[in-house]
Amino acid sequence: LPLPEKALISEIRRLVGSGRLGRVVRGIGDDCAVLSLPPGHEALVTTDFSLEGVHFRREWHPPEAVGHRCLARGLSDIAAMGGEPIAAFLSLALPRQIPQAWVNRFLDGLLKLASKHQVTLAGGDVAESPAGVLADIVVVGSVPRGKAILRSGARPGDRIYVTGQLGGSAAALEELFSGRRKKLRVSDYPRHFFPEPRVEVGRFLREKNLACAMVDTSDGLSTDLGHVCEESECGARLEARLVPRAASRPGSAGVDLRFALHGGEDYELLFTARATRRIPATIKGVPITEIGRITRGREVTLVRLNQQTEKLRPAGWQHFRS
Amino acid sequence: LPLPEKALISEIRRLVGSGRLGRVVRGIGDDCAVLSLPPGHEALVTTDFSLEGVHFRREWHPPEAVGHRCLARGLSDIAAMGGEPIAAFLSLALPRQIPQAWVNRFLDGLLKLASKHQVTLAGGDVAESPAGVLADIVVVGSVPRGKAILRSGARPGDRIYVTGQLGGSAAALEELFSGRRKKLRVSDYPRHFFPEPRVEVGRFLREKNLACAMVDTSDGLSTDLGHVCEESECGARLEARLVPRAASRPGSAGVDLRFALHGGEDYELLFTARATRRIPATIKGVPITEIGRITRGREVTLVRLNQQTEKLRPAGWQHFRS
Repeated sequence: LPLPEKALISEIRRLVGSGRLGRVVRGIGDDCAVLSLPPGHEALVTTDFSLEGVHFRREWHPPEAVGHRCLARGLSDIAAMGGEPIAAFLSLALPRQIPQAWVNRFLDGLLKLASKHQVTLAGGDVAESPAGVLADIVVVGSVPRGKAILRSGARPGDRIYVTGQLGGSAAALEELFSGRRKKLRVSDYPRHFFPEPRVEVGRFLREKNLACAMVDTSDGLSTDLGHVCEESECGARLEARLVPRAASRPGSAGVDLRFALHGGEDYELLFTARATRRIPATIKGVPITEIGRITRGREVTLVRLNQQTEKLRPAGWQHFRS
Repeated sequence: LPLPEKALISEIRRLVGSGRLGRVVRGIGDDCAVLSLPPGHEALVTTDFSLEGVHFRREWHPPEAVGHRCLARGLSDIAAMGGEPIAAFLSLALPRQIPQAWVNRFLDGLLKLASKHQVTLAGGDVAESPAGVLADIVVVGSVPRGKAILRSGARPGDRIYVTGQLGGSAAALEELFSGRRKKLRVSDYPRHFFPEPRVEVGRFLREKNLACAMVDTSDGLSTDLGHVCEESECGARLEARLVPRAASRPGSAGVDLRFALHGGEDYELLFTARATRRIPATIKGVPITEIGRITRGREVTLVRLNQQTEKLRPAGWQHFRS
């Protein structure tokens, strides 16, 4: 390890700062962190791996992006419940030969996003890794009792909406996998390298009682819509022509439909709302698009651009698997 | 992977069972778990890696023991705060060629301990591992507001106590590392293979207001006492003759003093109490032993068996490092 474990913990503690921070009564430096939840709230907990070679590659992803994406995955899960994040916990295993600069830049990316969302890094674990950088992020948040927006709340007749655009992250990955270029310019693919979790949008939807069911598009639209249908015991009918496709690069045309349908790691929100609800065209500056509706039965169908209808199979992006 | 990720999650979900379990409002199957804390309580959160080759070896540790130890590490941290565990979260990355039977037995060991402590496995993550079995356990618990027993509560004059016996786990490791035997009989070294986290003792100490500072002996007495002294800004004087040494095997003599002083992973509780407090000789069937006292200044000293005094350096067991 570039720094012994104890020194690494001290360094993280120094970066995080001390003193009581919001709802973190006790942060790094004890057997457990102690968190105080707002009165009348329930706790939300999510954990997500970020494993080198599975979720990122050091030769493709700058360390700041790896740190940012690591935390973004957890924040996006909190957003998908309509919750507010409180604290993050980082379990980090590092190979012995990793440069200290890489670790510092990784932490920098992670802590910048944490600061933006007023989330305190309140604990975790460090270890030596047998192979590559291994990170597991836990985010704890809160939501008023009984108000979490579950995957199971969709009903036939609901309209299906999505935030932002889809497929941008997968298009970047495809470019990397193709070998056409060894590296991508981070600024060309911001949604892949520095995805912005939709915490404010999720909270707005919960506060205004707009969404009945919600999930984040971490696995890809077809898979995540499948999750909603499975938990809600219903089907869906998706209109290909309505699916908002990301520009593959700024100023360029939209990505191929298959990226928008199956590409994961966009960290947008997919939600349903009763047909009688008026949903704003933008929320907190993020465009909201209606893309289909929830149906009876259990089938998820896609109305293609040529108006033909076919079964939509979950074919979510399997991270870096070939 | 022996099972695709989706199938593995379904299998875990089946093992855990469904329905509302205690304080888990929503478990596996949504973006986050939803937990309801008892009124007037704060949340406790702890995360711990269990990495193959670092914290265990598949050729030495039966899968049930790996699963048990994985969760025991987290439960022991909750115990060390005087808290009550509510839910566990397992992030599990598996190498492609691992036998399904190994995974089942691992989960069996983990879930048996969870059931014993009425802890629900409420979520986690699964992924393919680039190298070996990688597990990260999160345990969330609760404690009445302001009542968590911190490392920072020790004061000069406090007596230092420890539960159970120390060094048993390190003695088992030493035996394994020595190469004298390829495997150990699990029943000969229960404290190494199936450590019992002292949750009930920790809770008793908190309820009766007996302990001022507490830590679990996961890193070894010298290191963990160092943590208490550092956070409490005080020193300590430890009496070697008082340190309760584990029998290396049932019926055999106590382990070498260095294992009891520096060997980690015993998962006993180390706590301090005001000198005027009467501490029972056993709590919930576990012997409690006074081993020294907290002093002014910042030095941790050891009174050796020959009555000579020396500085006690933190030399906690560094897991499987040579």
